[in-house]
Amino acid sequence: MAVKKLKRGVALVGAGMTSFGTFPGLNTRDLFVQAFQEMRASVDKGFDPKDIEALVIGNYSSTMFEGQNFMGPYVADAVGLTPIPASRVECACASSGLALRQAIMTIGSGLADVVLVGGLEKESDLPIARVTDVLATASDSVYENPAGFTFPGLYALLATAYMHRYGATPETFMKIAIKNHENGVLNPKAQFGARIADIMASKQKSAAKRGKPVPQWDSELDFLKDDQANPAIAWPMRLFDCSPVSDGAVALLLVAEEIASSFTDKPLHIIGYGQGSDVPTYERESLTSIKAARVAAEQAYATAGVKPQDIKVCEVHDCFTIAELIAIEDLGFFKPGEGHKAIAEGLTSRLGPRPINSSGGLKSKGHPVGATGAGQVVEVFKQMRGEAGPRQVPGDLNLGLTHNLGGSGMAAIVHIFERRQ
Amino acid sequence: MAVKKLKRGVALVGAGMTSFGTFPGLNTRDLFVQAFQEMRASVDKGFDPKDIEALVIGNYSSTMFEGQNFMGPYVADAVGLTPIPASRVECACASSGLALRQAIMTIGSGLADVVLVGGLEKESDLPIARVTDVLATASDSVYENPAGFTFPGLYALLATAYMHRYGATPETFMKIAIKNHENGVLNPKAQFGARIADIMASKQKSAAKRGKPVPQWDSELDFLKDDQANPAIAWPMRLFDCSPVSDGAVALLLVAEEIASSFTDKPLHIIGYGQGSDVPTYERESLTSIKAARVAAEQAYATAGVKPQDIKVCEVHDCFTIAELIAIEDLGFFKPGEGHKAIAEGLTSRLGPRPINSSGGLKSKGHPVGATGAGQVVEVFKQMRGEAGPRQVPGDLNLGLTHNLGGSGMAAIVHIFERRQ
Repeated sequence: MAVKKLKRGVALVGAGMTSFGTFPGLNTRDLFVQAFQEMRASVDKGFDPKDIEALVIGNYSSTMFEGQNFMGPYVADAVGLTPIPASRVECACASSGLALRQAIMTIGSGLADVVLVGGLEKESDLPIARVTDVLATASDSVYENPAGFTFPGLYALLATAYMHRYGATPETFMKIAIKNHENGVLNPKAQFGARIADIMASKQKSAAKRGKPVPQWDSELDFLKDDQANPAIAWPMRLFDCSPVSDGAVALLLVAEEIASSFTDKPLHIIGYGQGSDVPTYERESLTSIKAARVAAEQAYATAGVKPQDIKVCEVHDCFTIAELIAIEDLGFFKPGEGHKAIAEGLTSRLGPRPINSSGGLKSKGHPVGATGAGQVVEVFKQMRGEAGPRQVPGDLNLGLTHNLGGSGMAAIVHIFERRQ
Repeated sequence: MAVKKLKRGVALVGAGMTSFGTFPGLNTRDLFVQAFQEMRASVDKGFDPKDIEALVIGNYSSTMFEGQNFMGPYVADAVGLTPIPASRVECACASSGLALRQAIMTIGSGLADVVLVGGLEKESDLPIARVTDVLATASDSVYENPAGFTFPGLYALLATAYMHRYGATPETFMKIAIKNHENGVLNPKAQFGARIADIMASKQKSAAKRGKPVPQWDSELDFLKDDQANPAIAWPMRLFDCSPVSDGAVALLLVAEEIASSFTDKPLHIIGYGQGSDVPTYERESLTSIKAARVAAEQAYATAGVKPQDIKVCEVHDCFTIAELIAIEDLGFFKPGEGHKAIAEGLTSRLGPRPINSSGGLKSKGHPVGATGAGQVVEVFKQMRGEAGPRQVPGDLNLGLTHNLGGSGMAAIVHIFERRQ
């Protein structure tokens, strides 16, 4: 399949998000209003919301989480944008990666010059077991779901396949969690912005307070290997290998490249874009790589005309720690089977040569599924503009990448951003 | 808001659909495979499915109807199209109108030359009361749904407002139902392809068979006014004012205009396109017109450079009979308040000067909500190419229009098609 380029360039000129966490009493519309206001404030030269010509939102399942389907016009109404076209797309956990892509096509096709992108999910109104059920409707209702698979189980399948093929150990996954919590502690929007060491200390303090025996651990790894402190959810995926149940919303502003300078002097040009699909897990040739992501990455690099080694900052979809490991190989940062060694050597830490998930990733920042893909873009926006504060990745970050997965990897969406000033 | 045109033309070269009805034992994927095969056969010069570069499907809520969210890749897999981009859009009952629009933008932006559009819904696995609940998740979960509104109630609100303002009577609505059943009887794919007169006769026969008193009616109108035979669902909307619960799937093939002639000598050029949104019913200035539809129609006429009177064949979204009445005014075929007179005079019948819903409309053909918008396109495709068999609208049908509503009219999508040979 030949790789095709947009007829017209598109730039990102604004980005805002709520904190990710659990917000009783607020619905997705309330959350989106917050994200929209922050996005407005991020547009350096300001703009009139009346100039927005279309809205595309990504939302996985407000239908089941809140009893509200058809979210496009409700969100448009919440920020006063009717009667513009207001569309919802759904691609499991890649829903707002897809919203970004559809918005790019809206501008690329000539139908609009200014498009608002939303990502939103409100999961925490349901009991947690019901949340897992709702998420499981993204797995195959014919063969996977009835066999008892939920997403921890599906990713555990990939993890055991990877361990078997390449000799990785559960320690590899734990090191990813430790690294992402290290980053998340520097992110004020993160749901679990605490080091694993802090969580250990807090558990010890709480035991002492209750007059119970105080558990002792030698290290963060020692803590994560403790079956009590970090129980298996679906072996080898333990509690701290899983991203949390989250609420959150994100807003991004995209404009046609030729008008970007009237919004900001620091636009990010969206130069690479790719989307792939794949069959369910039970039909795949390999479980140690995600084909949809390889296809999406290949298209993104080809459209951008850059190579993996050119990318300076990168957010990947670590819904489970194994997903981050596979992602850094699928994106071509490390060869197949080499990713786990890179992690062991700390190459993917924020100050290392290949920083991954400076935001804390889905693991620490949170994973309100429909908001996640757009949330990754907020981090790349801040990092590439040098506005990431204490978690700023050093260097001239002229190229950034986001990698957003749907379900067990039946969909993947990759974008590459360039800052030219 | 200035009306903007596509950077690149798009043509429709193939269209296929399942019958609409209830199909126990088949899921949406099974139905889509049928529609896909019929679409393939409709492409005069043939094509290789490997040339399809993207899939966009419209689906309202397989999530709740079948426990399957994230339908894009599952549908792609069902017809062997992975790893191409496979996206789902949702816009309530305008979901596949939106899928068509997104596919147009995909080609218009340059990212693909050949795009498959799907529309699909499988409603009948749930008990009918649950189906109504699932549909009601498109109404406002904050103010409408908790107040007891379901869609018959919301459209009854529009109907009473119209009656009050313009002096229409429930007979107007009944005449729409009679006309659409007249058309549907000629459509082999229709769920209720029977004249109202046939339904009357069948009820009489059945009563006689059971030894019960045989009910007598003077006319179809007399039958429809009988509270027993045609009970109120939400006055003035009675049973025969409501479209049914349906299953069905549709497939359309779109290509870049410059390659259309390698698929068919009779492409339909998509020259007009519009999408609008609106606030919920309780915030509207008027209930006798649907603003989103007026906005969408205005854009579609402006992009196409044609006027309402130029349109030769037209499918409108008659989820309830009142919706057809409002549609023919919103589309500019009749002035506000004049539509009910046109209906009384028979102007919208298949052989009249302004034929509406030659397919039988949602009322008689069926309304599998996510498939409906694309299903309207199948009718226009057949009519404009002179392939509609016994229900063929006479004349040179060079311009056709589809009008697809979401929810209570919080979204509307309009497309205009042109045949140049």
